[in-house]
Amino acid sequence: MIDTNGQSRLDRVPVTTTVLKLSCPDRVGLLSRITTFFAHHGGNLLEVHQFADPIGSWFFTRIAIETETLALELPALRKAFAPLANDLEAEWSLRTNAEPQRMVVLVSKTGHCMADLFWRWRSKELPVEIPLVISNHEDFREMVEREGVEFRHIPIPDSGDRDEAFSRMLETCEAANPDLIVTARYMRVLPDFFCKAFSGRLINIHHSFLPAFEGANPYRRAYDRGVKLIGATCHYVTPDLDAGPIIEQVVERVEHFHLPEDLLRLGRDCERLALSRGIRYHVTDRVLIHGNRTVVFRD
Amino acid sequence: MIDTNGQSRLDRVPVTTTVLKLSCPDRVGLLSRITTFFAHHGGNLLEVHQFADPIGSWFFTRIAIETETLALELPALRKAFAPLANDLEAEWSLRTNAEPQRMVVLVSKTGHCMADLFWRWRSKELPVEIPLVISNHEDFREMVEREGVEFRHIPIPDSGDRDEAFSRMLETCEAANPDLIVTARYMRVLPDFFCKAFSGRLINIHHSFLPAFEGANPYRRAYDRGVKLIGATCHYVTPDLDAGPIIEQVVERVEHFHLPEDLLRLGRDCERLALSRGIRYHVTDRVLIHGNRTVVFRD
Amino acid sequence: MIDTNGQSRLDRVPVTTTVLKLSCPDRVGLLSRITTFFAHHGGNLLEVHQFADPIGSWFFTRIAIETETLALELPALRKAFAPLANDLEAEWSLRTNAEPQRMVVLVSKTGHCMADLFWRWRSKELPVEIPLVISNHEDFREMVEREGVEFRHIPIPDSGDRDEAFSRMLETCEAANPDLIVTARYMRVLPDFFCKAFSGRLINIHHSFLPAFEGANPYRRAYDRGVKLIGATCHYVTPDLDAGPIIEQVVERVEHFHLPEDLLRLGRDCERLALSRGIRYHVTDRVLIHGNRTVVFRD
Amino acid sequence: MIDTNGQSRLDRVPVTTTVLKLSCPDRVGLLSRITTFFAHHGGNLLEVHQFADPIGSWFFTRIAIETETLALELPALRKAFAPLANDLEAEWSLRTNAEPQRMVVLVSKTGHCMADLFWRWRSKELPVEIPLVISNHEDFREMVEREGVEFRHIPIPDSGDRDEAFSRMLETCEAANPDLIVTARYMRVLPDFFCKAFSGRLINIHHSFLPAFEGANPYRRAYDRGVKLIGATCHYVTPDLDAGPIIEQVVERVEHFHLPEDLLRLGRDCERLALSRGIRYHVTDRVLIHGNRTVVFRD
Repeated sequence: MIDTNGQSRLDRVPVTTTVLKLSCPDRVGLLSRITTFFAHHGGNLLEVHQFADPIGSWFFTRIAIETETLALELPALRKAFAPLANDLEAEWSLRTNAEPQRMVVLVSKTGHCMADLFWRWRSKELPVEIPLVISNHEDFREMVEREGVEFRHIPIPDSGDRDEAFSRMLETCEAANPDLIVTARYMRVLPDFFCKAFSGRLINIHHSFLPAFEGANPYRRAYDRGVKLIGATCHYVTPDLDAGPIIEQVVERVEHFHLPEDLLRLGRDCERLALSRGIRYHVTDRVLIHGNRTVVFRD
Repeated sequence: MIDTNGQSRLDRVPVTTTVLKLSCPDRVGLLSRITTFFAHHGGNLLEVHQFADPIGSWFFTRIAIETETLALELPALRKAFAPLANDLEAEWSLRTNAEPQRMVVLVSKTGHCMADLFWRWRSKELPVEIPLVISNHEDFREMVEREGVEFRHIPIPDSGDRDEAFSRMLETCEAANPDLIVTARYMRVLPDFFCKAFSGRLINIHHSFLPAFEGANPYRRAYDRGVKLIGATCHYVTPDLDAGPIIEQVVERVEHFHLPEDLLRLGRDCERLALSRGIRYHVTDRVLIHGNRTVVFRD
Repeated sequence: MIDTNGQSRLDRVPVTTTVLKLSCPDRVGLLSRITTFFAHHGGNLLEVHQFADPIGSWFFTRIAIETETLALELPALRKAFAPLANDLEAEWSLRTNAEPQRMVVLVSKTGHCMADLFWRWRSKELPVEIPLVISNHEDFREMVEREGVEFRHIPIPDSGDRDEAFSRMLETCEAANPDLIVTARYMRVLPDFFCKAFSGRLINIHHSFLPAFEGANPYRRAYDRGVKLIGATCHYVTPDLDAGPIIEQVVERVEHFHLPEDLLRLGRDCERLALSRGIRYHVTDRVLIHGNRTVVFRD
Repeated sequence: MIDTNGQSRLDRVPVTTTVLKLSCPDRVGLLSRITTFFAHHGGNLLEVHQFADPIGSWFFTRIAIETETLALELPALRKAFAPLANDLEAEWSLRTNAEPQRMVVLVSKTGHCMADLFWRWRSKELPVEIPLVISNHEDFREMVEREGVEFRHIPIPDSGDRDEAFSRMLETCEAANPDLIVTARYMRVLPDFFCKAFSGRLINIHHSFLPAFEGANPYRRAYDRGVKLIGATCHYVTPDLDAGPIIEQVVERVEHFHLPEDLLRLGRDCERLALSRGIRYHVTDRVLIHGNRTVVFRD
């Protein structure tokens, strides 16, 4: 169900970019030192984003450089940049977009988000590769395998010790060498050790505009509360349920005549949009996490 | 600061309408019986809204009738309608829009919502009359009196017994014979007896998209939580703080570079819109409350 | 790529409904006469919408009745209703939702809208059946046939006489006995005779917020004009290009850093939403056309 | 009708900033050279925005510097920066926000936008000063003068030679030494010589989502076209009517039951928001014009 022709006709010739993502304590002259470094190595800056947070006194930047203008290969560039980064006490990464990020999808019995991600992957809208889907149910095996993707069924017991199952899931994930794990309507609470193992690269879609309606059955609770808008939140998963850093939120107006099943229907569109956009920002190195907030240099 | 010319040029000649608002247990044939009643009395129906809630099995309707086509005057019409309403076990009202509703405004030190309501009143966008403003501070006396509106300063003690002050406020309100009390950024929690005295006609604007960030300092907490949208909620006040039936919600997208003071600024526009729209729906008899939900037949 | 489990769990047991759609010159007592007719035949009204247009003096209604409460079968009900409808000089239909509407899809080389419609059909979100896809290219044959849907390739010559090809397309459509034809990014202008043959049941998605950017290359022209929002419009097709009655519009904010290919990407989400919602309203008998405007009783 | 207390309580202590706005042909090393210049003069960068347009190969930047960290006073800083700017073939400005911009308002008989601007000015939300209002009608004299603002009535003849009147208006504007002229629902088409005299600092609010419904009566035409959304556009005025560079657009959904006067009502809220936001971006040096497009570094 894939269209690989439609979008690319109008796209310009893609350029390989090298992206610096960096955050550090704010001080005078930061941007000058960093851009001078890349100018020194011949880099043509395609996109520069910078944000100096005056409350936390923290500095964030994302710099996209035309790879072929750089005098150094990536490993050498990283090595050359390290002393400056150390001096700035920075958290940083330097990556190229030459390889799509590897994304493992976790799903239960609600498949609209996964189907949407598959479509955006296959149509090249989303620069990812999906090597593996893991589910606590068998329902989507056929659909996933038909896409040529490995499907692993790892049931989670309804009660008792779940750690064994989640440990197996963690090992299965790690074996796929993922850059990113996405819980695309995965209906089990993940244990702390799983959240921590993939800290900063585990993304969830929650079907409410957080922090409203954390936890189970948000649409039903939204209906009962009589809200006039519903929404979806794409966020990083932390051990605190539905309390991790928010990447993207999408809302939709509702009215008194919308029943809980209408909220589900309208909410699905919010979920698809919020999740696919959040993932897009993440895999294009546009999200920087600081504490419980995110800096998102949108495109 | 009023424009009484601009809007009316394109408005059609206003028609006096008589509005029925009714809710009752759902059953077969309700709308037929009600519309037949008005057809029998010659009423030309200008607008009919109906909603049958399949979950609560409850029926809601709002019917606007061209007053001059009705064979009976309002008191006689009410009397004629009462037996049918009783038979339906209905909660109902029959009103004309000939007289604007009387609205008392409560305010503290943040005046943008009050200023907006004044403007919409004076420009005839909002069919209300504002006979009285009450504040726990003196700040807005000059501004309010300049508009020819009575201003009453009723301070609320920071600690200790506040009931005496709120009792005086209740009496002052009642003396103004209000159809509606609006807390337009009034920064004191109202006691139960006050909320109950004006049940169903006491409207608040809360500066968050409820149920997120109930209580104090919602913008600061929204900033700290790192949400990607902020909002405002117009709702009826009940003894449960910020938990009453919601009439209208307005949201605005925010990004990482929006500081708490930016949220305040953007939020003011949300508040103005949500409050003025919520009031508009209320004073034009477009809101029906049922439990903690509202049916809003928007215009 | 289908999820038939996810949504239905929370849906209530579906009820077969019979829907009246009616428009006629406005006059006193209309709704009373119509609802009394159905009350007389035992019909339990699930949903009633009514709109009396004061400018055109025209009356519109949609009434959804619980089929099993009706004393008459559909053909008999239609026969019983006809005299009243004639008396009202009404345009009307009485249908049940027992059978999904048959929808033929026309597509060229851009497949995101078709893929979205397939997904909503298979997941039962959209109550339609898709028996046939027609394209002026071969690109989607495999994808369409994999879904078990007939695919017909009808090339349209770039220049010269196209009427023969379009006549064949018209016949092919008619042979599929469609309730609805959807041009889901079909990149050929349809001739008048085709538009007229399916008047009122031919729906297009245009990739701009009409009436801005009618015709070709709307995203590029939106970029050149420097607009701060883009959008998509779902509308009925008439012989006037992109000028038919609008059913639904969806917009998205854009900024200076969004290049034409970004507008395409963001626009795809607008198109999917506007088209699928417009189709939903149409196939659930929620759209009434009057002149060049639509009345849409949304759900 | 002003609240000078509400907002400032939560605002942090304001910092005087010096803002560079610059655009020039794109080339390698631009940002490095510019930020190094300011680092050299001790400037602490509070906010840096940069956009390199890959289609036009043009570079745009806005840099806000904490004034008191700069080693040079503004005139000396400008002098020091000039050689670099010349070398870059740049269009540029260096300003401080110490003085609010002077804004002249032109209005006809529709006052909601002007009233809104007055309120935002008086509440210090908008960093402007309004020394003068000019109108082709007398209607708002009292309201304007009550605010302590000079009011000038310059009637424009309905037919015949209007140049004399517009010349007088131009002189009156220039005498007020304005940084910005705003046509806040001014209902006369301005002549070319007036548009050119204030090129880049003449801002209009048009009551449609341009380019739809350029020219007169946009709401009525929106109603007749049956659009499902209306809007307002804030743009720079050029001799081409309603075709100048767009700064901001705001839209609102409408439905079939919204009559032309409802569009006017809902549109007023769009107009207020779009105009006040557009002005805010302009007076805080956040808008760079290039051809018929704008780069807006929003806050």
